[in-house]
Amino acid sequence: MIEGVELAQRRCVRGAKKLDDETLAALRAMLPAWRVEGGELRRSFRFADFRHAIFFVNAVAAIAEREDHHPDVTIRYRDVELALATHDAGGLTENDFVLAAKIDDAG
Amino acid sequence: MIEGVELAQRRCVRGAKKLDDETLAALRAMLPAWRVEGGELRRSFRFADFRHAIFFVNAVAAIAEREDHHPDVTIRYRDVELALATHDAGGLTENDFVLAAKIDDAG
Repeated sequence: MIEGVELAQRRCVRGAKKLDDETLAALRAMLPAWRVEGGELRRSFRFADFRHAIFFVNAVAAIAEREDHHPDVTIRYRDVELALATHDAGGLTENDFVLAAKIDDAG
Repeated sequence: MIEGVELAQRRCVRGAKKLDDETLAALRAMLPAWRVEGGELRRSFRFADFRHAIFFVNAVAAIAEREDHHPDVTIRYRDVELALATHDAGGLTENDFVLAAKIDDAG
């Protein structure tokens, strides 16, 4: 059980296990801007324009490379949608929430 | 009727009109890597890894900004999908094919 941790300060780790319902609920409560949809952790961002959207995507990419955990990214002009999941674990793991928290810090 | 032009050397212009069927067919024949799907001009790219995918997206973004014409971009790790359309014209215009040709040069 993870509670009260500073999610954004954790690191993504190899072999993370799919979360149990209780831990999932606790982590979701820590990241209210994100939604769980189709087994993915998703968030939509809107920026002033395309250039700002691309700037953000590059910040996300740098985090993703550092954590070796890569969200799906959709860019529609100034709107960016991110979708996180841990395919190896067959669902959401703590890694997804750690990555989301780091992205929130960058957004 | 546009034929035999070097599409990639043209520029996207304001107020481009939706293409008639004959011109559309001629332009499609010039860009065989692209497909028309759901009223959009689409192409999928696969790269060595995420880093290379992001590098390509930045090249596309620079072209898009220069032409003031912005494709929808979806990144899934090393796969990038682009979708071009001219929403103001209610369909595909020469701008979409000019942008696609410029992206082919960068890809």
